[in-house]
Formats: sequence, structure tokens, C-alpha cells
Amino acid sequence: MGRIICCGLGPGDPDLMSVRADRTVRAASHVAYFRKKGRPGQARRIVEGMLAPDVTEYPMEYPVTTEIAFDSVEYVQLLAGFHDEWAERLARLSRAVDVVVLCEGDPYFYGSFMHLHTRLQGRVEIEVIAGIPGMVGCWNGVGQPIALGDDVTTVLMGTLAEDELERHMRDSDALVVMKTGRNLAKVRRALSSAGRLDDAWLVERGTMPGERVVRLAEVDGGDCPYFAIVLVHGKGRHPDAAE
Amino acid sequence: MGRIICCGLGPGDPDLMSVRADRTVRAASHVAYFRKKGRPGQARRIVEGMLAPDVTEYPMEYPVTTEIAFDSVEYVQLLAGFHDEWAERLARLSRAVDVVVLCEGDPYFYGSFMHLHTRLQGRVEIEVIAGIPGMVGCWNGVGQPIALGDDVTTVLMGTLAEDELERHMRDSDALVVMKTGRNLAKVRRALSSAGRLDDAWLVERGTMPGERVVRLAEVDGGDCPYFAIVLVHGKGRHPDAAE
Repeated sequence: MGRIICCGLGPGDPDLMSVRADRTVRAASHVAYFRKKGRPGQARRIVEGMLAPDVTEYPMEYPVTTEIAFDSVEYVQLLAGFHDEWAERLARLSRAVDVVVLCEGDPYFYGSFMHLHTRLQGRVEIEVIAGIPGMVGCWNGVGQPIALGDDVTTVLMGTLAEDELERHMRDSDALVVMKTGRNLAKVRRALSSAGRLDDAWLVERGTMPGERVVRLAEVDGGDCPYFAIVLVHGKGRHPDAAE
Repeated sequence: MGRIICCGLGPGDPDLMSVRADRTVRAASHVAYFRKKGRPGQARRIVEGMLAPDVTEYPMEYPVTTEIAFDSVEYVQLLAGFHDEWAERLARLSRAVDVVVLCEGDPYFYGSFMHLHTRLQGRVEIEVIAGIPGMVGCWNGVGQPIALGDDVTTVLMGTLAEDELERHMRDSDALVVMKTGRNLAKVRRALSSAGRLDDAWLVERGTMPGERVVRLAEVDGGDCPYFAIVLVHGKGRHPDAAE
């Protein structure tokens, strides 16, 4: 009986992978990873040059369609079918061998693998290796503490409604906004209404080649990078109090 | 001219240190770390067995006093003086050699080193190596996704006022509460008022020897472990939507 090992790869720089992840990736004989059709896939790119020469790769390609919208009920069903099918294939495969599933960041923190995890739990032995979340790599790029003292930190998805974004932005010291992309204009408006836009940073490709760190207020509205996170740093309530 | 390298060590298991941190710790000739007087110090414990035989160690021992309260103005001043003094010593030392400062978790995320970082920035070359935050190690111990889909995640300090804790607990999907210790009874009451106590986990010494994962509702009120984090998992809004 094999296992499924979900391996957190960290924010992008292979040097920021954990010692355990590094060892697991190099020793893997079967690796699976999500990717968009026609793209190398971010997880696969992180391990470039690390895989054994005789490794077997299983790219799990997201279904594409030009006929239905990404937020439609039909697409959600299509995606559920895709996850069902890959859960089945990985479960079968892991009866004979260990399968390493490559995951960006930390698998348990908004990780795509979780859609398979839900379907596989209790059926197959699963090991999850923690990784540095992508947001940690991004705030490292700014070079200031994201939060300290008694700061409240809130992690938001750019997909949320503008009023909900704004409410949380007002009510938190430090802020992280993920899934920005085409939601960036909305995220900017919400930050502006909450009086936080001037303190916001946009970090694109954190810890990766081509990393860009800019003040969000200075970014052109039409400039919507994909691997980007918006950050607002906490000021540190009681910064000198004992931990 | 040397540098100050603040090395994030991750949640506790040395195998979860990054490849870069592992290499940096093993090559270090001068290491500094915070600790309480008479204790080995958590950061120092993580690197046990990894340091070079001829390394020079600088334990930065927090001032202790039985005369003044930890939350008093006097103690805050005492601590500020302690940070001033060590910033000065490390700055002088780094004129000649590289100094590696050992930090639990990720240095930029509520890290104690930030009190020195503020004082050293612009005076000395500082490199910060990202690490897996302690909370990531803790939710890995529970073995469920802490957040997915459009979940809002909020990180709170147990030192906050009860009504502020309760408000954030009502308004977030996933929750992380740090600095529990003697605040645990207050954290429990706030979770209970917010209707979240039954979903809360207490994780003690995440990824370390003696790790304990229990439901908070089942923990005795007098049982207040020090290295403990309280977690409430998000349910995953739109769990099958495309990322």
C-alpha cells in the first residue's frame, strides 16, 4: 500500500522549500500537480531540475471551456467532476506506489489539493507537508513586519463583495488580500473607502524571478498581474510589550 | 562588513526549516537568540545538534523582575532598554562578522526580532529568511484545511479585550488565536459568546515532541499551556469554485 504525500512547496523560491519537502521531491517516483491547459503549472515550475530522471508525471489539467462562465453552476459541476476523477485516479495509483502531489505554498491554507483531500480522506493514507504560505514570501519582499504586538491580521479573498471587503479592511490592523487579478479594481476601491489605500503594497511573484513590489496607489488600474497579493502592514499595537 | 541574518526556523520540527535556513544555521559562526533566564530558549532548542562546534553563542536574556508587573509602563521601558542594548551589541558585532539571529516561525509575523529590526534598519545590512509560521505547524497537526474558497481568516492575540475578540470571532470564517496562555479563559468565553467554541481546537507544541491536539471545549479551564494556539476552521465558501 502506498500513500499520497501532499508536499507544500512554499512561495516559489526552491530554497524556501522545507528540508522535508526538498527530500521528498527529489526522492519521488510519481508526481502529480494541477495546471492550466497549455501552461507549465506553478508547482511544477518550482521543482524544475529537482525531479529524478525516471519520474512519472501526472499533470492534472483544469477543464477549459469557452461555452460556460467560470462562476456558473455548470462550471462548478464540471470542476467537481474533474476533482472526483482525479481523486479516483490517485487513490487507485496509491494502492501500488507513493504519489507526491506538488502544492504551492502551504497545502492546508487555501490550497487546491484540499478538493482532493476531502474526497480521499479515510480512503487512502495521506501525509501533508507544511510549507511557507505564498503571502509570507510576499511580505518578506516588502521587508517590514506585517504584524506585531497585539495587531489583528485578516486574510481576504478579492472575490468577496466590495462592502464585505471594506468592512474587514476598516476592522483589521494588518491585511492580506489574495485572489486579486481581475478583482484588483474592486480591492482598490474598498481599500480607498476604508482609508487604507495609501498604506497598501502590491507584491507580484513574491520570492520568484521577476518579483515586483510596488505601492498599490501607484499601479495603473489596468495592470492586473496574476500571482499578486495586496498587503497592508499593521502598526504594532504595544510594540514593546513582552511576548 | 558583516551582516545580520535573521533566520526564520519554522514551527519547531527542524525538518520543516527551509533549505536556506538549514544551510545558514549549519554554516553560522556567531548566533544570537532570545530566551527567558534559566530556560534553553525555544529557537535555540530547534537548532540543537545543528550548530558548528566552534560557534559563538549570544543568548539575549529577557530582563526579569519580581518588583514590577509585565504590563506596566516600567516593564515596557525596561524591555525597550534591553532591545536598545542588544541592537547596539549586534550592530557592533556585525561590523566584523555575520551574525545569525535565530527566530521561531516567520520573523516578520509577530516575531520578537522585529524590536531589533526597527532599531537596526538603515544602520546595518539585514537579511531576513522566511519561515513557516507557528500557526501553520499547528493547523497541520489537526489535519484539516484551515481555510479554503472565499473564507476570511483572522489572526487574533489572546491579549485583546474580550468584546473585541468576540466581534472578530463572529465576523470571520477561519480563526487563529495566538498568545493564549493565561488569556485562555477569556478566549474561551469570547468563542462561546460568538457561538464558535464547539468548533475550536487547542494545539500545543505544534510539530514538536509532545504535540497535543484537543478540542478546546474538552480542556480543563486551569490547563493553560504556553506554546498553544487556538484554531477554528473555515467551512470553505464556494469550495468547488475555480481558483
